[in-house]
Amino acid sequence: MKNHYLPLLCSALGLLLSTCTSEKAPHAPGEQVLFQVSTIDALLAGDYDGTFTFGELRKNGDFGVGTFNGLDGELLALDGHYYQIRSDGKAYPVPDSARTPFATVVHFEADTVFSLDRPLRFEQLLAYVDSLIPTENLFYAIRVEGYFGAVKTRSVPRQEKPYRPLVEVVKNQPTFDFTQTQGTLAGFRTPPFMKGLNVPGYHLHFLTHDRTQGGHVLACTLGKVKVSIDYIAGFQMILPTTGTFHRIDLSQDKQDELEQVEKQRDQ
Amino acid sequence: MKNHYLPLLCSALGLLLSTCTSEKAPHAPGEQVLFQVSTIDALLAGDYDGTFTFGELRKNGDFGVGTFNGLDGELLALDGHYYQIRSDGKAYPVPDSARTPFATVVHFEADTVFSLDRPLRFEQLLAYVDSLIPTENLFYAIRVEGYFGAVKTRSVPRQEKPYRPLVEVVKNQPTFDFTQTQGTLAGFRTPPFMKGLNVPGYHLHFLTHDRTQGGHVLACTLGKVKVSIDYIAGFQMILPTTGTFHRIDLSQDKQDELEQVEKQRDQ
Repeated sequence: MKNHYLPLLCSALGLLLSTCTSEKAPHAPGEQVLFQVSTIDALLAGDYDGTFTFGELRKNGDFGVGTFNGLDGELLALDGHYYQIRSDGKAYPVPDSARTPFATVVHFEADTVFSLDRPLRFEQLLAYVDSLIPTENLFYAIRVEGYFGAVKTRSVPRQEKPYRPLVEVVKNQPTFDFTQTQGTLAGFRTPPFMKGLNVPGYHLHFLTHDRTQGGHVLACTLGKVKVSIDYIAGFQMILPTTGTFHRIDLSQDKQDELEQVEKQRDQ
Repeated sequence: MKNHYLPLLCSALGLLLSTCTSEKAPHAPGEQVLFQVSTIDALLAGDYDGTFTFGELRKNGDFGVGTFNGLDGELLALDGHYYQIRSDGKAYPVPDSARTPFATVVHFEADTVFSLDRPLRFEQLLAYVDSLIPTENLFYAIRVEGYFGAVKTRSVPRQEKPYRPLVEVVKNQPTFDFTQTQGTLAGFRTPPFMKGLNVPGYHLHFLTHDRTQGGHVLACTLGKVKVSIDYIAGFQMILPTTGTFHRIDLSQDKQDELEQVEKQRDQ
């Protein structure tokens, strides 16, 4: 970002703002690329075979979210380290040879950094970030690091063929509760016109400070945290050329299914 | 394409096939990238200010379609040459300094080449290509070169601010009829899940053999032509960071408007 949003952001932060700094001179949004493997609708349809190696994925980003071959857990990538949070809630290192059916990563460069020290709920945090961003028509990578009063996560258990649709899988998802914990939320805000390709709105995963546990975020309350936002105008997607992707009917709107999967947040 | 589709394609071609050859060893679909500037829904909404220079666009492809700053005509790129087909139906060279609000290009590499020599109509050609491709879930660049019994094209006249939506502009579009002509159809077949970002299905422009006239294809009948298809699994999009893009509401489905714009084909 060439700092033309910074004065607007700083003035908009209001009472909640503790600090507002641009940590370094980042690339402009147009020079950054959000890199994605496959589409969210293919994942919703049960296309869980990993087609893209994490060795290749790492080249395209040091930060991101996704899942694994056979839907074997939640991916969180942070500072170049890739973690597989399996259905036991624990974080495991990811070998280069592992494969993903769906992931979104970026080389994270904070355009805006600020501190919060209020007991906000998850939805309040998201609404607050909504109020700060200049447009919903760009991509944003979001990192929230610090103290949390509580975090509720889920992971997904490895699936066997024939694969069931994701909306069926998450009906019996293991969930995990963390209280008075340190850690990091990491993920993306995606524009509404990305429906079918990615998750419009927010998609965040959590990792504890000691990087041993986490999952897909269902709910949380914040303590004192540092929020970093990376503005991104470039998008790249690689579609699978092997596996079952070619045979899936992706002509139907799956927004209802996606919302059902997201609604598991309230359970 | 690593030739694993070629036997299937060759066997499927049936009576219509004259020749079926792979001209050279192309890159695999996963190694090719369809490069796009902005989104079709932004164009439908009247976001006609060019934000991306053709100097930069050329680096991302030698083949493609799109439009110009102020909606000043139809773009056709062929063999690395970029042509601006303005509302007089004539093709002009495109300077590097010109800007586009929406374009889609690729470094074209034919995966499959075959000849046709039947008086097919446009819709029959498209249905035939549909029957040959292995899946609708990839991108295809399509080049049809040779003799045409007739080609009907349109172009769009340069717009002044405040810009009207595209569906209004095309109500008074100039059209052009070519008969017994040589030339090239060039464009793309885009997957259904690209709705909102690009034109699902086919989007083809025409250029005469002497490269002096053309436009957006509304109808045609084929003579003897060579059809080349490039299979593409990679997609890259750069969203505008200047102009009015940030202020447009892109949360609504514009499929009806897109179909109205496409229906102008029947006039």
